[in-house]
Amino acid sequence: MENRPITLTTDFGLADPYVGAMKGAILKVNPEARITDITHLAGARDLLGAAFILKEASTYFPDKTIHVAIIDPGVGGLRAPLIIETERFAFVGPDNGIFSLVLETEIIVRAVRITNTEYFQNPVSTTFHGRDIFAPVAGHLSLGLDAGLIGEPMDIDGLVKITLPVPILEKEKITGEIIHIDNFGNLITNIDKESLEQLGEKITIKVRDREIRRILENYSESAREETLCAIIGSAGLLEIAVNMGSAEERLGAEVGDKVLVSL
Amino acid sequence: MENRPITLTTDFGLADPYVGAMKGAILKVNPEARITDITHLAGARDLLGAAFILKEASTYFPDKTIHVAIIDPGVGGLRAPLIIETERFAFVGPDNGIFSLVLETEIIVRAVRITNTEYFQNPVSTTFHGRDIFAPVAGHLSLGLDAGLIGEPMDIDGLVKITLPVPILEKEKITGEIIHIDNFGNLITNIDKESLEQLGEKITIKVRDREIRRILENYSESAREETLCAIIGSAGLLEIAVNMGSAEERLGAEVGDKVLVSL
Amino acid sequence: MENRPITLTTDFGLADPYVGAMKGAILKVNPEARITDITHLAGARDLLGAAFILKEASTYFPDKTIHVAIIDPGVGGLRAPLIIETERFAFVGPDNGIFSLVLETEIIVRAVRITNTEYFQNPVSTTFHGRDIFAPVAGHLSLGLDAGLIGEPMDIDGLVKITLPVPILEKEKITGEIIHIDNFGNLITNIDKESLEQLGEKITIKVRDREIRRILENYSESAREETLCAIIGSAGLLEIAVNMGSAEERLGAEVGDKVLVSL
Repeated sequence: MENRPITLTTDFGLADPYVGAMKGAILKVNPEARITDITHLAGARDLLGAAFILKEASTYFPDKTIHVAIIDPGVGGLRAPLIIETERFAFVGPDNGIFSLVLETEIIVRAVRITNTEYFQNPVSTTFHGRDIFAPVAGHLSLGLDAGLIGEPMDIDGLVKITLPVPILEKEKITGEIIHIDNFGNLITNIDKESLEQLGEKITIKVRDREIRRILENYSESAREETLCAIIGSAGLLEIAVNMGSAEERLGAEVGDKVLVSL
Repeated sequence: MENRPITLTTDFGLADPYVGAMKGAILKVNPEARITDITHLAGARDLLGAAFILKEASTYFPDKTIHVAIIDPGVGGLRAPLIIETERFAFVGPDNGIFSLVLETEIIVRAVRITNTEYFQNPVSTTFHGRDIFAPVAGHLSLGLDAGLIGEPMDIDGLVKITLPVPILEKEKITGEIIHIDNFGNLITNIDKESLEQLGEKITIKVRDREIRRILENYSESAREETLCAIIGSAGLLEIAVNMGSAEERLGAEVGDKVLVSL
Repeated sequence: MENRPITLTTDFGLADPYVGAMKGAILKVNPEARITDITHLAGARDLLGAAFILKEASTYFPDKTIHVAIIDPGVGGLRAPLIIETERFAFVGPDNGIFSLVLETEIIVRAVRITNTEYFQNPVSTTFHGRDIFAPVAGHLSLGLDAGLIGEPMDIDGLVKITLPVPILEKEKITGEIIHIDNFGNLITNIDKESLEQLGEKITIKVRDREIRRILENYSESAREETLCAIIGSAGLLEIAVNMGSAEERLGAEVGDKVLVSL
C-alpha cells in the first residue's frame, strides 16, 4: 500500500496542542503515516520567512513527499485551501503565497482547490483548518488518493504569489539584503553565488558599515576565531558569518539590512 | 503484530537528555514504536496547563493510542504510577491529576497501579520514572500487552483529580477567566460555546477594562487588522484575539485574568 | 530488510531549515528510516554540553542504533568525518570530540574516516556536511551497509578527545563542579554516586555559600516545598535541586560553579 512521506511547516510553536492535534488527525486517516517536522517555529504569520525555510528544506526530501505548510492568518476566510502537485512533490495548505518560493524551482502539474468535505474532520472549526482540513487531506493523499477527488481544478496562474526582495545587479555592484538570520547568527543574504561570480574576484562586501574583502570556503578557514567573514552558505547564497561567533550580535544586524557588494 | 501509537506530553523541555532517553527506552521494548510528541514544553510542574494541552490534542488521535504524560514533581514518592484504560485510549503516567481533564469526556474502563517490575528498566532511578517505568510500560502496551499484567486494579473513584476553574453562570452574565494563552497571543477562556449561546446574541465581553461586542466567525473577519476581537476557538471555547496581532501583548493579559460576558 | 534506528543530536535549533533538510536527506536514502531527535538545542558549538546530552540519552536506545551528532564548527575544514562502531551502536559525525563522553563506556570495534563520495549528497556544500555527508551516510548504514565500504580505517587512539572536568577526590572532601543545568533548574555536578559513598554518610555539600547536609531519595522527600536539597539524579550524579522550584534561580548558579562535599 502507498505511504507517501509527509512534512509539516507551521507557525504553531511547540507549546500548544495544535501540532499534536494535527498529527493525530493525520494518523487517524493513515495510522502508519511517516511525518517529519520541518519547523513549527516560523514567526507568527511570517509567510515569507516560512516560505524560505520550506524551500530550503523541502527540496531534500524524496520524491512523492507531501509538504504541508500552515501559516494561515486568513483561516476560515476567503483564501482557498489547496493542493499543488508538482513533478516531485505535493504541497498542501492555504493559497496565500506560502508555496511561492519553493514553486520557483518545481514544475507544477496541477492545482486543486480543496472542497470535498468527505475528506475533512467533522465538524470543521473556523479557526483551525490545519487540524480539520489540511491534516486529514494530507493523510488521504499519503495513502495514494488522487488529488482530483478532493476538490476542483484551480488556475495555476491565479495562485497567490509572494516574493523575496530581489537584489539589484549593476555592472560593478550588487545591492542585496539580509533575508534570514539563522540559529548561529549567520546572516543569509539574497545574493546568489552566480551573481557574485559574474561580478568578479576582487570584491568588497559592505554590511552595517563593516567591510569584508574575501569569500572563504568554510567557516574555519578564517585567519582566527571571531573574525567577520563571508561565505557561500548551504543555500547557495552569500552569507556573512563570524567564525565561532554570531555575526548577528557582532553587527547588531537585522533581516532587511542592506548588503552591498562592489568591485 | 499489534503496534499501538504512542504520544508523549511532558515538561522536560527539548534541551536535556530526558526526552531522548524516554524514546530510547520505548524503542528498546518496541523497536517499531510510532511515537508522536504532543509537547515537551509544558511549564515545569504545571499540571493544569499540561492537562489542558493533553485534552485538546489527545482526542484527535486514532483509537487505541497510548497517551503518556509525565508532569511528575512527586516522582519517587508516594504517588502511584498508573495506566488508565478508556474505551478509546490508554493513559500512562503518575496519579496526580494530569489526566483529569481528558477523562471528563472519555469513558473509563479500568485503572491499573503499575507494580510489575518485570516491565521496568533495570535499575529504576528515584527521579526519572518517565524513562525507567512509564516508557518501557508504554512500549509493552504498544505491543499489545494486557494492562492487567502490569499491575493491580485501582479504584477509579480514588484517582487524583484536578479541575480547571469553572465559570460562574448567572442569568444575565458569565464570569469566566483566561485559562491558556497560545503561541499567537490568543487568550483562551473557560467559557464554552453552549454557555454563550444560552446567554443570548447581544452580549458584551469585558477583559482588562476593554469591551468587545461581537463574536466573529474567524480571525480575518474583523473590520481591519490589529482589531481586538472575540471568537469561538478550535477548542470550542471563547477566545480573545487580535487579528494579525497578539491579544496577550495588546492587553498585557495573563492566565487567570477575569473575563466577564454580559447582556 | 535491515532498518537500524537513527538518532540526531545537533546545535541547529528548531527554526531553521537545517534539521528538516537533514531528515529529508536521510529519507531520500532510506524512505522507511526511523529517526528520533535527541536534541537540536545544544548550545551553538558547545561540544562538551552536547557530548553530555548525547551520552545520557544514547545509552537507552536499542542495540544497533546509529547516533548522528553534528556539532561541527570545523565543517569543511581539516577535521575528519567519521563513523565509530562500538559493540552496541554506530556513531556518525565529525572527529572533534563530540563522541568522547559516550565512548568512555562503550567498547569500540573500529573507526572509519568517511571518504566514499558515492554515498554523499551531490554536490557537497562546504558548510553543511550534516545534510550532504552525515545524513546520507547514516541512511545507508541504517539499511545495513558495511561501514568499511564508506571510507578508510582510522586509528582509534588518534580520535580527538574532550573531557568533562574531573572532580578532585581527597580523603575528607571532594571538589567538583556543576556540569549541566537542566530544564527544571536542577544543578547536575560531576560528582558520582560511588565517590560520595566512599566519602561516608555524614557529609556537607557547599555550593554558592549555601550548605546542604543530607542527600534525599527523591525530590518530594524534602521537608517542604521550595527547600534546597541534594539528590542522586538519573545520571547517577550528585544534583542540587529545589523541590517544586529552581536551584538555578535560587542560587544564581552557573555551569562551572564549584561544589564542595566534605565530612
